[in-house]
Amino acid sequence: MPTLMEIARSGNITDEMIRVAKIEDCSPEKIRERIARGVVIVPRNEIRENIRIVGIGEGLSTKVNVNVGTSTMVVNVEMEEEKVKTALKYGTDTIMDLSIGGDLDGIRRRLLSIANVPFGTVPIYQAFIDVTKKSSAGIYMTEDDIFNVVERHLKDGVDFMTIHAGITKELVAKMRKTKRLAGIPSRGGTILAAWMLYNDQENPFFKNYDYLLEMLAEYDAVISIGDALRPGAIADSHDYFQLSELLNVAELVRRAWDKGVQVMVEGPGHVPLNEIAADVRIEKAICRGAPYYVLGPLPTDVAMGYDHIAAAIGAAIAAAEGADLICYLTPAEHLALPTPEQVKDGLIAAKIAAHAGDIVKLGAKAKEWDFRISKARAGLDWSTMYELSMDKERAKKIHEQFGASSKGPCTMCGDLCVYVLLSKFLKED
Amino acid sequence: MPTLMEIARSGNITDEMIRVAKIEDCSPEKIRERIARGVVIVPRNEIRENIRIVGIGEGLSTKVNVNVGTSTMVVNVEMEEEKVKTALKYGTDTIMDLSIGGDLDGIRRRLLSIANVPFGTVPIYQAFIDVTKKSSAGIYMTEDDIFNVVERHLKDGVDFMTIHAGITKELVAKMRKTKRLAGIPSRGGTILAAWMLYNDQENPFFKNYDYLLEMLAEYDAVISIGDALRPGAIADSHDYFQLSELLNVAELVRRAWDKGVQVMVEGPGHVPLNEIAADVRIEKAICRGAPYYVLGPLPTDVAMGYDHIAAAIGAAIAAAEGADLICYLTPAEHLALPTPEQVKDGLIAAKIAAHAGDIVKLGAKAKEWDFRISKARAGLDWSTMYELSMDKERAKKIHEQFGASSKGPCTMCGDLCVYVLLSKFLKED
Repeated sequence: MPTLMEIARSGNITDEMIRVAKIEDCSPEKIRERIARGVVIVPRNEIRENIRIVGIGEGLSTKVNVNVGTSTMVVNVEMEEEKVKTALKYGTDTIMDLSIGGDLDGIRRRLLSIANVPFGTVPIYQAFIDVTKKSSAGIYMTEDDIFNVVERHLKDGVDFMTIHAGITKELVAKMRKTKRLAGIPSRGGTILAAWMLYNDQENPFFKNYDYLLEMLAEYDAVISIGDALRPGAIADSHDYFQLSELLNVAELVRRAWDKGVQVMVEGPGHVPLNEIAADVRIEKAICRGAPYYVLGPLPTDVAMGYDHIAAAIGAAIAAAEGADLICYLTPAEHLALPTPEQVKDGLIAAKIAAHAGDIVKLGAKAKEWDFRISKARAGLDWSTMYELSMDKERAKKIHEQFGASSKGPCTMCGDLCVYVLLSKFLKED
Repeated sequence: MPTLMEIARSGNITDEMIRVAKIEDCSPEKIRERIARGVVIVPRNEIRENIRIVGIGEGLSTKVNVNVGTSTMVVNVEMEEEKVKTALKYGTDTIMDLSIGGDLDGIRRRLLSIANVPFGTVPIYQAFIDVTKKSSAGIYMTEDDIFNVVERHLKDGVDFMTIHAGITKELVAKMRKTKRLAGIPSRGGTILAAWMLYNDQENPFFKNYDYLLEMLAEYDAVISIGDALRPGAIADSHDYFQLSELLNVAELVRRAWDKGVQVMVEGPGHVPLNEIAADVRIEKAICRGAPYYVLGPLPTDVAMGYDHIAAAIGAAIAAAEGADLICYLTPAEHLALPTPEQVKDGLIAAKIAAHAGDIVKLGAKAKEWDFRISKARAGLDWSTMYELSMDKERAKKIHEQFGASSKGPCTMCGDLCVYVLLSKFLKED
């Protein structure tokens, strides 16, 4: 069966394309043409039903992703379900299950069943963990172990998966001889790096990339090429390793397109503010416009406890410059597994960043929301303001924290409210 | 007595300059030369004692300001004192008292006595309120009423004051005939606008600007020229009124320098992300490098309940581009008077923005902090990480929220921690 990309190339318009066009307020033909070129993707596993159709890429609104999942130290499936529900309530566009603790197959299937948005995973985690359970150390996993997990995820309906196919044995060996402050901050990248060096073998995803693409094509799933060698510290930003991996990734993007497989590219981790726009432009240039899925970018390493704010700064700049999907960070980043409340905080920060970027990227189409809320504000129309905010309960709660009424000025300015004062003394001209 | 600016111009180096140079890690001569040119200011009323010396401007680290103060609807002086203490605990560089409710003289003096950092006010508020109490409507205030309050604040030791001297009767009249979505979002600007139109008089601060400067010079206080016509909505960004006022302000900066009065410029309110860098450059160009005190910038109007995050996005970009002082916004912005906890949230967001900007602005000097925290992170050295964070209690609390120990990996990755995994299987080369 042809993939969505192949259908688009043949000139045909599908239901998915029509739905994306409607959501993004443009013509289906535009969406078709961008899918054909690879600059827009629509993550949807062939076998998934009841999934919201989400377009990601050039000319579309910036989307946000929420990561959930158990850890080896905290396995509370009900809490992870609650995180999925929170993420959906506050409008996430995609969800990734990064579980590494408990019954991984069972957890993935449970979360998949409640998440009606594109759903992603990182199969290498499970491959490593399953083998650790079987034979004491994940490092003994075989190539078959790895691809079997990929297949299991595809069969379950996973829509996109992070695959660290751009990190090679040569790059890892070279990196080990270099002083890199934060090493390899990617969990999947680290598993592969350890495996490659320990077993003196090439990255199985790099080595068997065509085979992997064939598997993905069968389910029409999206490959999200992981950035194993992203900088985990400002000091490591845009070093030899980050950019070398990106060069590999660009070639992998081209090969995915050759096989009709939709692809996006992950990046860039911790980078100074003045390198963020450049980073996005470089990704877009060398990967020929492949959608960019940004983690962070974090413009500082010091914001522990508030990394969702640091990430929002970076993500807004990235989105304005063309990043297509923002992976949220929570206040617990670098510290702990997040709580559902922290998931919400992280998601809303990411959505603010996405919208600030969209005002630049999409212009009037995005500004409409700001216009409506500011019009309501100038009219002291609180109920409309609540209705238009990302978190109505919180807006109302704060507005009323010192007992303001639902009519008239707020407790900040009271009688000196700018929207009361001028009209009090002056008639409209 | 000569002002600091006049002393600097005469080539002499004062104790303040030496202290700023030490804090900023540069030579006193550089500080002297920048004060002489007006591109660095050191806000300190002649009569203030026990005040931290803070330099603001070119080549220095980005500073942050916290606003506190009662409103007409909520007068709780103890709470405002708590806000000052919270702001000092979490490292604010300056504080402004924007009180408009209760015994304004008493409150200002109480807050001044506990705030050992440069302290600012907006005298027009009190002028208007005092006259409202005396004669039923503030609109009847005289020029003398206004300047008497300015003098009272100076005599109390106020180090800098926001004066909306750039808004003229002509601009207000013109604006009233134009559809501006959010009107005049500035409280002081609105008071003056109403007064000018109602009384058919020119802005007293504009009209008597030289007299005002002489008063300020006597106490060597800083004038912070308010941006009455800043945009209060994305739709109003960089319109005729914002830029016209800036043209007036540039001329007022020149005149302040002629009188040896230190000056900074306030701006720019709600502006789209891609206009922020341009805004800073334009201010720096037309105001000949006068320090820029930014409110926001807010790159979206929709972040109600989370405006501290939206503001952090704008402030980081502004700081990286050269903004010198960031006015924090709290999560209660546009909604209510903030609580002490919201003051803390706003301040930390502003400090993250300032530091993200400083990494660009100051390079290695600023990155040292990131380097140290990332080194501690790679070594799983939690106590050093806490010690280096902006909010130790919160970092520790989040780290331990699912019971992680103080040694080893956090509850996010557990056994799959990237800083454990690689070293477990591979010896260091």
